[in-house]
Parts: sequence; structure tokens; C-alpha cells
Amino acid sequence: MRIIGLDPSLTSTGWGIIDVQGNRLQYVADGFIPTNPKQPIEERLDIIFRTLCEVMETYRPEEAAIEETFLNTNPETSLKLSMARGVVVLSAGYYHIPLFEYAPNKVKNALVGVGRAQKEQVETMVKILLPGCAPKNNDSSDALAMAITRSHYRHSF
Amino acid sequence: MRIIGLDPSLTSTGWGIIDVQGNRLQYVADGFIPTNPKQPIEERLDIIFRTLCEVMETYRPEEAAIEETFLNTNPETSLKLSMARGVVVLSAGYYHIPLFEYAPNKVKNALVGVGRAQKEQVETMVKILLPGCAPKNNDSSDALAMAITRSHYRHSF
Repeated sequence: MRIIGLDPSLTSTGWGIIDVQGNRLQYVADGFIPTNPKQPIEERLDIIFRTLCEVMETYRPEEAAIEETFLNTNPETSLKLSMARGVVVLSAGYYHIPLFEYAPNKVKNALVGVGRAQKEQVETMVKILLPGCAPKNNDSSDALAMAITRSHYRHSF
Repeated sequence: MRIIGLDPSLTSTGWGIIDVQGNRLQYVADGFIPTNPKQPIEERLDIIFRTLCEVMETYRPEEAAIEETFLNTNPETSLKLSMARGVVVLSAGYYHIPLFEYAPNKVKNALVGVGRAQKEQVETMVKILLPGCAPKNNDSSDALAMAITRSHYRHSF
């Protein structure tokens, strides 16, 4: 089973792919998609979508995972994040890949064992759970954490 | 010059296309994209995107117009609307069509001449300004109003 984790952001969307065999996890690939804030938003969303299409076609994941959204206190930030999120969610739908959403505490629980773990603990666990993996940046590390979270809860829901 | 107006919504995204020659407006086509609330969101966004791709390829608009968003008081509604908006904005970027955003009062001003016009007045003006056009529903009528708004402000910004 191949799983892609997704971490949407207009500035830099992260993605990370793992293979799961029984209880064994294997790192496949990760990356992030920077966009230029000076470009119109329709072009930035186009870059995010086209890059994710390439990733989906190259690696052909069978399931996708994304963090449940909280609305930011800044309305404009929330709006832009949600628009990027729409395009990231579309990239799963466009390839008919079922998408699973997990709350932040579920992610921490799956990686560290406690729902209130620190962000750094999650990053450390990504490297421990995926030997030989050096995530490209925080965004792709967060995306790999989402993929691991999905593998953790696969048999529950 | 061919303009597409877009009215994003997860439930029913409206679209409407007009041709502009000097001060003359001509109705070309309109429609709406209903999605099933029982389907997963990734599939609903996929339906919206694929339908808009067909519309873009069939009619080849040269400019696109969309209403500036206000954030709804209900956070969940805002999130879903913004995600649909992201996919609708992407459909312009995907075809490299420049997108223009107008505040609701600009739309009312362009159609009725006053920024605080009623919704019904806008709908009536769409029919008057586009002779022979019977919009398919309110969503496509709102989308046609957006296209007319863009034609109105084309020479200012």
C-alpha cells in the first residue's frame, strides 16, 4: 500500500510518500512546492496543482492523507490557505485517490504516542520511523507525518 | 473579447460567458455545476474542476471574473466555500486566463448603477443587458453579472 501525505499551503505545499507492508514503513519520496508571492493567485494554484499531478503520476499513491483544518485567526490567511487546500484535495480527487483527514492531535498520537507532543518530537519521529529518510524541509516532513498517521489508523477507520 | 464570470460554491458553482465588442454585450452561454453533498469532498471538487475545464475548452474565454470573498460567519461554511473557490480560481490559472476580482458593491454598481442595489435588481439587469438570455438559475445569473462587471471596468483596471 502506497500512501501520500499532503500539507497544503499557498507559499509551500509539502508532500511525502511512503510504502506500507504490514507494520513496516518505507520512505519513497518527499518534496515541497514553493510559489512566488508576487505572482497572481491563479498562477500559484496552477503551479501547486500541476506539480501534484506530476507527483501522483510518477508515484501512483493509493491513499492520501491530510490534516483537518483549523481556521486561522487572520481571515485573509485562512482564505488563502483554504484555497490552496481546495486545490490539494482536488489533486487526490482528480486521480480518484481516497482522502483521509486527521486532527492534529491524532497525528501527534500516531507519531509520538501522545496527542500534545511538540512539533520537534514529530519531526524526530518521522526520521526514526522512516530510516534513511532526510526530509527536504519542514513542509515535506509534516506531509510524511500525515502519511505515517494514515498508516497508523488504517485498520481502525 | 470573451469573458467568463464565475460564482464558486461547493454545492452549485455558476458560470456565464459573454462576448464584448466596444460597448456591445452578447450572451454566449451559462450553466451551473451541482454536486452531491453525500459524495466525498475530493470527488465534488473533481466534478467542479473537470466541468470548468470542459467549459474553458469549449468556449475559450480570454478573461475571467470572480467576486471578492467575504468570510462567512460560519467557519465550516467559509472553509468549504474557500476550497471550492480555490478550484474555480485554479480553472482560470490552468488555462492561463487572467482573473479579475470585484467587490460585491462594484458588481451592483456596474449592473444597476448603485452599490447598494438589491439582488433582484441585479438579476433583472442581467436579462436586460443580455437580450435573449434566460439564465439557467441564480448561480449562473450571478456568474453572468460578474462577466458584465468585468466588461464594465475593463478600461479602468
